[in-house]
Amino acid sequence: MKKLINAPDTVLAQSLDGFAAAHADIVALGAEYKFVRRRELRPGKVALISGGGSGHEPLHAGFVGRGMLDAACPGQVFTSPTPDQMVAAVEAVESGSGCLFIVKNYEGDVMNFQMAADLAGKEVATVVTDDDVAVEASTWSTGRRGVAGTLIVEKIVGAAAEAGSSLPQLKTLGENVNRQTRSMGVALTSCTVPAAGVPTFSLGEDEMEMGVGIHGESGRRRVALAPADAIADEMVGAIVKDLAPDKGAEALLLVNGFGGTPAMELYLMVHSALRVLRGNGIRVSRFLTGNYVTSLEMAGCSITVCVLDDALRQWWDAPVHTAALRWGV
Amino acid sequence: MKKLINAPDTVLAQSLDGFAAAHADIVALGAEYKFVRRRELRPGKVALISGGGSGHEPLHAGFVGRGMLDAACPGQVFTSPTPDQMVAAVEAVESGSGCLFIVKNYEGDVMNFQMAADLAGKEVATVVTDDDVAVEASTWSTGRRGVAGTLIVEKIVGAAAEAGSSLPQLKTLGENVNRQTRSMGVALTSCTVPAAGVPTFSLGEDEMEMGVGIHGESGRRRVALAPADAIADEMVGAIVKDLAPDKGAEALLLVNGFGGTPAMELYLMVHSALRVLRGNGIRVSRFLTGNYVTSLEMAGCSITVCVLDDALRQWWDAPVHTAALRWGV
Repeated sequence: MKKLINAPDTVLAQSLDGFAAAHADIVALGAEYKFVRRRELRPGKVALISGGGSGHEPLHAGFVGRGMLDAACPGQVFTSPTPDQMVAAVEAVESGSGCLFIVKNYEGDVMNFQMAADLAGKEVATVVTDDDVAVEASTWSTGRRGVAGTLIVEKIVGAAAEAGSSLPQLKTLGENVNRQTRSMGVALTSCTVPAAGVPTFSLGEDEMEMGVGIHGESGRRRVALAPADAIADEMVGAIVKDLAPDKGAEALLLVNGFGGTPAMELYLMVHSALRVLRGNGIRVSRFLTGNYVTSLEMAGCSITVCVLDDALRQWWDAPVHTAALRWGV
Repeated sequence: MKKLINAPDTVLAQSLDGFAAAHADIVALGAEYKFVRRRELRPGKVALISGGGSGHEPLHAGFVGRGMLDAACPGQVFTSPTPDQMVAAVEAVESGSGCLFIVKNYEGDVMNFQMAADLAGKEVATVVTDDDVAVEASTWSTGRRGVAGTLIVEKIVGAAAEAGSSLPQLKTLGENVNRQTRSMGVALTSCTVPAAGVPTFSLGEDEMEMGVGIHGESGRRRVALAPADAIADEMVGAIVKDLAPDKGAEALLLVNGFGGTPAMELYLMVHSALRVLRGNGIRVSRFLTGNYVTSLEMAGCSITVCVLDDALRQWWDAPVHTAALRWGV
């Protein structure tokens, strides 16, 4: 295992220490690394909290800050955070207007956030994201998995929360964005969980995993490595088929690197994905390209399409000031 | 070779097409992919132009925009751009106040930018960056190599150009920033140039290349994989020894990923580097962490330290609106 770490059992704490030091103007660390919170809270605003296993950075701590999340609870690598983490986060950031949990659809996450909602003693609502069209159920989930589309839900709901929307409004908005958003991924290599020390799975020199999940879990099928255009045909094709947008629909395109893929290839995938989207009569008006929802050092990418209307576009464009997304401030 | 591409000879053009589509609000592509230019020029401002081999994205095209570069000339992967590219870029973005070239110290780059300066028929000055303390000369350079510190020169000089500084002032400022900036890198894996199809070099399962260059070229020595703290001791130690900052100096810390290293490890390196810097009485007031000056999919990172004073800190903090760096707008 080749990693820039000191030891597997100190990876998470030391990484969070570095993150908190580097972004001390935006975030603060909770006691015992239970959560990362927004440094300057906005009293009276609905509190947005997310979290999940680590190893997907910048998701979720990189999205804590003005216009997005109020707190994120990091579990160990690819391991759900425990309910006491979310309870502590609610305690730290809820200010009387209730709390919205944004949870990716994995059994451990859904269960632990539900337990936290029951224990928190505050008004809590939950949005569960399940944007991955690759599989209908998996080793980690009942139903579709929540993947890179989650950051779009967090950005749009975060902007509306900042503008004063109520908890029921935010839950409705988040569920609406999730319904308008679909993703699919492909892996060229595996990743290695530090505590395991060996790759999660193995791929031959000429193979790829089509429809891979963000923990390296199986997708639709293992196939021969294909050109970028053919990969985009399959992934965007599956997304468009499932999303069934109106002809002439406006969309946001997110090409997300899994951690080990260079920017040069991600932008090439933007080119390939655009060709397919245009061929389907979809007009892309907003783009996001980079490593946002990763699987440690896995090579590969996911493509996410979110159908926009005027309201969603305006929330997307609204100012955001986090470690990983920043504009308008 | 596992890459998200269609063919080695179309990688650069298709990647630039995707980049230009994704950032059409900021940049425009020159004819024949000769350069990427800022979409909205500011008449009367000194034009800043950089460039170099591709494969280091987001350097340099990702730094074109308000408050940074006016144009970037992308060569083929790890290959210098040709003089006609820079001549075309000068023609497109120079508006009467002269042009500053910012060039990393590699023989091909220095020669081709010099030829372009001679051919351009405009007033051109040049800043050559050489921040890499790892080696005093290399297969690619006479003297030290220009690496990740180049982006700090581009940001600070870009802010001063936006504020109306003259060509001689910008050249002096750029050379001053370069003198205050030192870097060193480490590689855990090689990278593969698409046209070559095989890794540039090979490293054993327990080896790393200490002092590696950004093309995978040799560093100081090949050694056994070490813990993050020991790596930071050696890299930051070499930087501090060479930079010899005053006790109590203020600094900017850039922890730069080479393309294949997860954010989790980069932030852990921030933690490790901070410990060494604090031990040397250096106070870090500004941070930048992420993939900024890459070597395709190479795993590893570089550490850069830039000594700040009030003026440099203010130029660093000034608004910037590019694909890869954005704040204040």
